[in-house]
Amino acid sequence: MLNERCVKLGKVRSVIRELFEYGNARKAQIGEDKVFDFSLGNPSVPPPAQFDEVLSDLIKNSDPVSLHGYTSAPGAPDVRAAVANYINNTFGDHVELCDIYMTCGAAAAITITLCALCNPGDEVLTFVPYFPEYEVFAGQAGAKLVPVKTEEGTFDIDIGAFRRALSPATKAVIINSPNNPSGVVYSKESIRQLCAALEEHSRALGSPVYLISDEPYRELVYGGEEVPYVMDYYKNSVVCYSFSKSLSVPGERIGYIAVNKEAEEREDVFAAVCGAGRSLGYVCAPSLLQRVCARLLGKTSDISVYERNRDRLCAALEEYGYKVVRPQGAFYLFVQSLERDAEAFSQRAKLFELLLVPGDGFGCEGYVRISYCVSPDMIERSLPAFRALAESYGIIK
Amino acid sequence: MLNERCVKLGKVRSVIRELFEYGNARKAQIGEDKVFDFSLGNPSVPPPAQFDEVLSDLIKNSDPVSLHGYTSAPGAPDVRAAVANYINNTFGDHVELCDIYMTCGAAAAITITLCALCNPGDEVLTFVPYFPEYEVFAGQAGAKLVPVKTEEGTFDIDIGAFRRALSPATKAVIINSPNNPSGVVYSKESIRQLCAALEEHSRALGSPVYLISDEPYRELVYGGEEVPYVMDYYKNSVVCYSFSKSLSVPGERIGYIAVNKEAEEREDVFAAVCGAGRSLGYVCAPSLLQRVCARLLGKTSDISVYERNRDRLCAALEEYGYKVVRPQGAFYLFVQSLERDAEAFSQRAKLFELLLVPGDGFGCEGYVRISYCVSPDMIERSLPAFRALAESYGIIK
Repeated sequence: MLNERCVKLGKVRSVIRELFEYGNARKAQIGEDKVFDFSLGNPSVPPPAQFDEVLSDLIKNSDPVSLHGYTSAPGAPDVRAAVANYINNTFGDHVELCDIYMTCGAAAAITITLCALCNPGDEVLTFVPYFPEYEVFAGQAGAKLVPVKTEEGTFDIDIGAFRRALSPATKAVIINSPNNPSGVVYSKESIRQLCAALEEHSRALGSPVYLISDEPYRELVYGGEEVPYVMDYYKNSVVCYSFSKSLSVPGERIGYIAVNKEAEEREDVFAAVCGAGRSLGYVCAPSLLQRVCARLLGKTSDISVYERNRDRLCAALEEYGYKVVRPQGAFYLFVQSLERDAEAFSQRAKLFELLLVPGDGFGCEGYVRISYCVSPDMIERSLPAFRALAESYGIIK
Repeated sequence: MLNERCVKLGKVRSVIRELFEYGNARKAQIGEDKVFDFSLGNPSVPPPAQFDEVLSDLIKNSDPVSLHGYTSAPGAPDVRAAVANYINNTFGDHVELCDIYMTCGAAAAITITLCALCNPGDEVLTFVPYFPEYEVFAGQAGAKLVPVKTEEGTFDIDIGAFRRALSPATKAVIINSPNNPSGVVYSKESIRQLCAALEEHSRALGSPVYLISDEPYRELVYGGEEVPYVMDYYKNSVVCYSFSKSLSVPGERIGYIAVNKEAEEREDVFAAVCGAGRSLGYVCAPSLLQRVCARLLGKTSDISVYERNRDRLCAALEEYGYKVVRPQGAFYLFVQSLERDAEAFSQRAKLFELLLVPGDGFGCEGYVRISYCVSPDMIERSLPAFRALAESYGIIK
């Protein structure tokens, strides 16, 4: 008699959470430093020092009634203006204040955007591997998530597969680059091809198919990799951004939705975003955090730690005989499991105290996800376990 | 092709917001101190000094990675434990840690609770006058809000009308006491009668009807008024609490859902709450604010200001010939309009620079809402305008 979908969503924990809870229990048994927990995408480096400085400054020098008071539903006007300026100065002239809607993080941003754009029965395409919660967010909007296969071995967009997946029910496409869980960054050429296909399909349908770019990892790229900005390539586009990973503040729930000012139904899209936020119970994004983030646009935590972790881990795993897709960004490594069944492989890894998330939940069999947003020290300590795991399959070089 | 409901919700601003925006424009025209804006329920007294002290202390003395990191979805365990202890020590033994779900304010709490409990077609009863956004929250859950009339002149629960409104589709009842917009506090006897009717109806249906208590104004009561705690009276009850008004931090979006540990389907109800929160895009309530509020349970801003405002305004308006329902709590005054059409009355009030919200949106014709969470000084300055407005109807004593 309760809402069955909600009961189920509340009871069936994600595989990631399940592993994480197992890890906590195991640590209590055998000691914190004996368990190698690569399950969660929880940043391990602290926020930049400016984060707490700006926080303290605002608390000390602002009128508390206005600092902690309601902002207008889409956000404080000065915050929205700062975000719009930042986008225009960084990526080109794409938005105005009236196109920016501050949110409680990227999960809220995507849920709000999907509810704004979709009607029941619509299809939302995304590329494997993909963040499993997309299924939940699409479900909330009454839409169906359609996973689209990618290039074998690289996880780059397979434009043929994408074109075949488009249908009269296609309302939107979600891309996530740098990608969770593969770390892949889609190239300019891939984005160009994707957008050409979207233009054609929109024309055929007589109404726009929207491109939603989920960008919590935008700044987490290594070796000068460039992440194309979708608004440069496609007018009916929406960017969902979060400060969670760039500033290492995932618990604070702060991000934004930016609607391309060239979008065909720009005003209606923005109105629908406001209406969806209202309907989902979001009154405004946390007011203090809005102000903090407006002053830290473009700043990041010390992400060099993640790059060093990536390099160390990739080199070691390849040495032990693992097949690794070298990630250009984010802080995840997607590694082929050493047996077909990634779930069984993840279970065996537990015997070596390695917590690796099976890729099936990301729509991709035969892989595990390793979150390397951990201490470099833990990575060093985990290497003998990775080696022993490979040896147990008899494949060590 | 966009979601029509969302576009509409985004375009049609609430009457309250409409008046507020008019007020801002008018202030720019004729001067800040010439406009008497009673439209918004935005606390005017600052948060207690401890609020910023605790904030600063946490920033200075906590590990930033954990302070700003993800908490578990229902909240940080120590925060949930603190809330549970506070409830048990204050109101009686009603909850455990596992019954507490931290939320982004009361709007999120009610939306999540309704989505958790309801299936499409269910009915949710509430008493007039009621907070207009309840319609939106129920709509999100696919449920229908059914307003129930109250006692003429007092707005107390009319138990006969309530019993007549119950139907096989009734899934839940929302009460809001102290009430927005009337300030009325339901008595123990009213709550007892309400709960007896709910018990009977649940028995007849063979499944529980839930009582949801929306409590952002719990601490804002005057003259020692007592607000009954629903869990004392009814086992299938859920409390939706917000720190917005008690601590004057409405922009920070922090509150909680408490499920009565005696609820028949306690674990499933809590699972559904978790599932609904997950589906609506709430990953966790803001982590820093969770910790701040856990240390300030039971603390409030200086609410004596509101009590003095109430006394001054009630006395003056009665002197001028207005019919006022003297509020026992919250910071709203519900006053009979001086002509049948409250909308027309609100328009005429504008000629005197008085911004009063017509009660129709609260499900109650012939009244206006006056938010007296304003400066005492503005109240003094507004009194001649209230007198002149009454005189314009020829009813001044």
